[in-house]
Amino acid sequence: MQFLSDNAAAVHPSVWKAMQAADAADAPYDNDGLSRALDAAFSQLFGRECAALWVATGTAANCLALSTMVQPHGAVLCHREAHIEMDEGGAPGFFLHGAKLMTVEGDHAKITPEALKAAVAGIRDGVHQVHPHAVSITQASEYGCVYRPDEVAALAFFARGQGLGLHMDGARFANAAAFLDVAPGDIVAGVDALSFGFIKNGAMGAEAVVQFDPEEAEVLRFRRKRAGQLQSKGRFLAAQILAMLEGDLWLANARSANAAAAELAAAAGQRLLHPVEANEVFLTCTAAERAALRQQGFGFYDWGTEAARLVTAWDAKAEDVAALARAIAAL
Amino acid sequence: MQFLSDNAAAVHPSVWKAMQAADAADAPYDNDGLSRALDAAFSQLFGRECAALWVATGTAANCLALSTMVQPHGAVLCHREAHIEMDEGGAPGFFLHGAKLMTVEGDHAKITPEALKAAVAGIRDGVHQVHPHAVSITQASEYGCVYRPDEVAALAFFARGQGLGLHMDGARFANAAAFLDVAPGDIVAGVDALSFGFIKNGAMGAEAVVQFDPEEAEVLRFRRKRAGQLQSKGRFLAAQILAMLEGDLWLANARSANAAAAELAAAAGQRLLHPVEANEVFLTCTAAERAALRQQGFGFYDWGTEAARLVTAWDAKAEDVAALARAIAAL
Amino acid sequence: MQFLSDNAAAVHPSVWKAMQAADAADAPYDNDGLSRALDAAFSQLFGRECAALWVATGTAANCLALSTMVQPHGAVLCHREAHIEMDEGGAPGFFLHGAKLMTVEGDHAKITPEALKAAVAGIRDGVHQVHPHAVSITQASEYGCVYRPDEVAALAFFARGQGLGLHMDGARFANAAAFLDVAPGDIVAGVDALSFGFIKNGAMGAEAVVQFDPEEAEVLRFRRKRAGQLQSKGRFLAAQILAMLEGDLWLANARSANAAAAELAAAAGQRLLHPVEANEVFLTCTAAERAALRQQGFGFYDWGTEAARLVTAWDAKAEDVAALARAIAAL
Amino acid sequence: MQFLSDNAAAVHPSVWKAMQAADAADAPYDNDGLSRALDAAFSQLFGRECAALWVATGTAANCLALSTMVQPHGAVLCHREAHIEMDEGGAPGFFLHGAKLMTVEGDHAKITPEALKAAVAGIRDGVHQVHPHAVSITQASEYGCVYRPDEVAALAFFARGQGLGLHMDGARFANAAAFLDVAPGDIVAGVDALSFGFIKNGAMGAEAVVQFDPEEAEVLRFRRKRAGQLQSKGRFLAAQILAMLEGDLWLANARSANAAAAELAAAAGQRLLHPVEANEVFLTCTAAERAALRQQGFGFYDWGTEAARLVTAWDAKAEDVAALARAIAAL
Repeated sequence: MQFLSDNAAAVHPSVWKAMQAADAADAPYDNDGLSRALDAAFSQLFGRECAALWVATGTAANCLALSTMVQPHGAVLCHREAHIEMDEGGAPGFFLHGAKLMTVEGDHAKITPEALKAAVAGIRDGVHQVHPHAVSITQASEYGCVYRPDEVAALAFFARGQGLGLHMDGARFANAAAFLDVAPGDIVAGVDALSFGFIKNGAMGAEAVVQFDPEEAEVLRFRRKRAGQLQSKGRFLAAQILAMLEGDLWLANARSANAAAAELAAAAGQRLLHPVEANEVFLTCTAAERAALRQQGFGFYDWGTEAARLVTAWDAKAEDVAALARAIAAL
Repeated sequence: MQFLSDNAAAVHPSVWKAMQAADAADAPYDNDGLSRALDAAFSQLFGRECAALWVATGTAANCLALSTMVQPHGAVLCHREAHIEMDEGGAPGFFLHGAKLMTVEGDHAKITPEALKAAVAGIRDGVHQVHPHAVSITQASEYGCVYRPDEVAALAFFARGQGLGLHMDGARFANAAAFLDVAPGDIVAGVDALSFGFIKNGAMGAEAVVQFDPEEAEVLRFRRKRAGQLQSKGRFLAAQILAMLEGDLWLANARSANAAAAELAAAAGQRLLHPVEANEVFLTCTAAERAALRQQGFGFYDWGTEAARLVTAWDAKAEDVAALARAIAAL
Repeated sequence: MQFLSDNAAAVHPSVWKAMQAADAADAPYDNDGLSRALDAAFSQLFGRECAALWVATGTAANCLALSTMVQPHGAVLCHREAHIEMDEGGAPGFFLHGAKLMTVEGDHAKITPEALKAAVAGIRDGVHQVHPHAVSITQASEYGCVYRPDEVAALAFFARGQGLGLHMDGARFANAAAFLDVAPGDIVAGVDALSFGFIKNGAMGAEAVVQFDPEEAEVLRFRRKRAGQLQSKGRFLAAQILAMLEGDLWLANARSANAAAAELAAAAGQRLLHPVEANEVFLTCTAAERAALRQQGFGFYDWGTEAARLVTAWDAKAEDVAALARAIAAL
Repeated sequence: MQFLSDNAAAVHPSVWKAMQAADAADAPYDNDGLSRALDAAFSQLFGRECAALWVATGTAANCLALSTMVQPHGAVLCHREAHIEMDEGGAPGFFLHGAKLMTVEGDHAKITPEALKAAVAGIRDGVHQVHPHAVSITQASEYGCVYRPDEVAALAFFARGQGLGLHMDGARFANAAAFLDVAPGDIVAGVDALSFGFIKNGAMGAEAVVQFDPEEAEVLRFRRKRAGQLQSKGRFLAAQILAMLEGDLWLANARSANAAAAELAAAAGQRLLHPVEANEVFLTCTAAERAALRQQGFGFYDWGTEAARLVTAWDAKAEDVAALARAIAAL
């Protein structure tokens, strides 16, 4: 009964089916019919013209998206716990050719315009210090918390005022959208580029970089190739993404995962370290308690020495979730 | 009846089967059982200790392999027609942080120690000119020609003497091995790193970087992550590769493709521009002749204005190949 | 009697004087009065608003100038003999973050719109090949030949039409200007950025990057600092440059050097490999003849096995030049 | 009466003299006699074989020194206030091709093995987080404090144990050495590369990178050229450095600057924020007090809102220092 992460979950049957349907040879790279259908699919989803490119990993999605906003002498403002800062093995430094990450603090791994304002105010004018070129936020955040549309709007307003791009790392965008239950376009208003995650949510190896400025998308295509991310059988990646969009499978899967997390959250009660808005549950938990849970067969990560992180995948079994909820309540 | 390329061919049924067998969640990234089995599988294949990492594209495989040999102030010696020079959208410049490609000429897109010697002799001592750190050869070459073991050995001897690494771009390594019909280890004697291609030969989206110096493999793991190439469901890539190795499927597929090419070559006779040793056929062919072939339903690339390139994939249908052979003979 | 190069010549007395006059502490970096006077001085010289930044070397000047025109996934079109290609130790790859140099051929190390057109025509559409973002020409060329204003205009017209920036490597701009004897602004019409060389012409360690688009100059200031080129006692570099501009010392020095070269050229007669338009003389010359010249005390570089390169510096002594001219005539 | 910085002070007369003596043309780049004398001069100074290369700025010195220790996928551990982190406009990201800076805290801008140990302990094993390849310390620190030899030894011991290089940013190495009054070699025991600053201490535009591993120095020479730092009239930089070493002028100048700072420190008394061990004085000081000092003609930087930073250059006039000391005492 694994609650370690959603990142290695099974592939959804509809995704498998779509991939198999794509087996017959088509044009290579992104010249196949499926890849060519992505721009329209995402434009419809977001109610706004955009371009969408598949890549194989969230790290590549984030870093390529940022590469169109950040010159090598610039920086990205992000939360100190952001995935790009903590978990991407220095990929931003690689894709951005040495640009810097500037981190700010914020509750629940979310950032606020005030925090950004303070960070920017601390930078001296002139060339001796690095200046930010973009802001990156994670939706849902690294602690499973969700930016409301007005929060994104406020960040976008700030970014625009400073001449900064706004990137959204949506590795768990689906979980955020399922929580917010508003039109997807409302969640990305003011965002310049979105890394739209599908892998944690039922796909195999395809994420989308959604670029809301079509001109930048041209540059992105060059940079994707240059980064060794242009797969020759790209039709299989497009197939995964289109299958996830079809009939809003992405939302259905995310709702499942969120519901499982909500069930655990209810059991955790006062133990919760962060509001549970997506599919991650952080709870205080002694070493002895964690050992007890593990003895019952539950897998999860320690979070420091006094807490645990539980992640519910789209395919978490109801009985496992219920069992874990009971076990938590019984601690 | 497509003979455009092997790079968008269908996925082999055994590969599909292996991928589906890998669906159940396992540890993420390359911590799953399949990924962990790669080192041993390739060590056995080559009869020599090596480490093997999956990546999603040949471009990533080539550039990551080279990144352990070439410092940013160095260069790679390669053929003027090499894929890294002509077709990778500047990826070597990216992955090698600005290192240079130095090209040499050579018949059939193969390079010789003599050509390398001349190139190196033309470089002034000192810091004003860039010096090579590695040699990269393509097996089979961009014109479908194969380096014999003694040719590789001579290049390795030269490289070693100059303190250069030796990289083999094996996007069509299987086709070369099928042609040579010797132990795989004999083909890579003296090679430091091999990009072992599977995608053109029946896989979906997995190539292997085979590193014959295990210490360098550690660095490679960091660089793969940093390049956004470490997929979280890596088990599906490992599954593809292991399925291709299983029972020497990689060789069987390559033999099919080579046999198809040989059939076309026999029909082409005096028209051949290069010996047909792998699965590519280059033949002189006027515009009118090419139009005639296309009218009969055959797809292929023009090669300049007076020639055509035909590529036979592992899954080329016997009747299509026979039909094309007849059409060529009838020109 | 050295005719090896102009790059290690003495510093002109007026430059020394200006440097010493700048000794008293002033604001650091480029906030001192002299550095702040550069924009106006060059704007006046070229009759067109521009910004000018000092740097310590021609390599830095060239590469920083190009860095504002060329994105990392792009390329620079230049002559195969261009300094950036042949003599800068890979600096363009470093400053341009892996962008490529694409070389063309051309008589006298000059390039033509036709050569550029052919090069561009050879690049396939799409992302698999690198596309140029800029053209770089050397004025005077590596063989001491000078682009006429209409030649530059034709190159600028081509570049503009292709959306490419135009950079002029003017390590010997002064020698070209002295030869052309037209208004400096006429020599750079259509040029986006000029590396204006002073070091070979009487300065100690200061070149100017002249940026004809003031907005780009802002980016350049950041990149100069980031490249470790922002000296804290920048006033001494500005002083050198202003001293060279003062009373057109730069032109006077270049005229001296050119005149010396012309004297040697006259003596060389039929031996000349290239028109002598600046301060470099390339002449056919057997090994025995070169040995003879060296025995008479003349220093110079061999140029391959059958030629010699003679460079006349601004401070070449009249008697040395005359002696060498006689020696050449006597061969 | 400027106490803003030592970085724009006048050039010492002996340095001028040495530069002028170097005017006569010599071999270009670092092939001249003076440049060739550097290795021996520094080897003698430090009592240990080393190689020394001139560059034009401290930023270039630091970043080039680090570039031989840090691969692009690695990081540098340094103090949060380190110059490389705060004041070099992102140059480390550029020269190290995207490697990261990891900052630690520490009193007086000095770092301890304990702080490094804690930082390293916080990094997860594996490829998802960046790992350090080097440690960089500043001697004297950004707050004018000096590492004792045993402190450096402890840091070197830690670095060695972790397989990390140790770099010393010695922009004010002379001030530290003057304070410590031990053999220079004792200050750099265990250090792999030193940026030895001369510009703040009487030179014009020359710092030395001292490499204690001669093999790495070869790489450094290539990287210096590639960074556009190889000046063709390098003899003038070598001349500056040799003049500073001659008769220990570097120590004499630093002693002057330190003595001036000590005089100010004595006047500041309880106001001091950090021990005054080199030539920087940080003192608490209200806005009104700062205004009062400025009204008396003293120039300096605010340090946040409640403090001031005073820097004494090698050429600070005794009467100015005395006047400022009196003014401080009178606050």
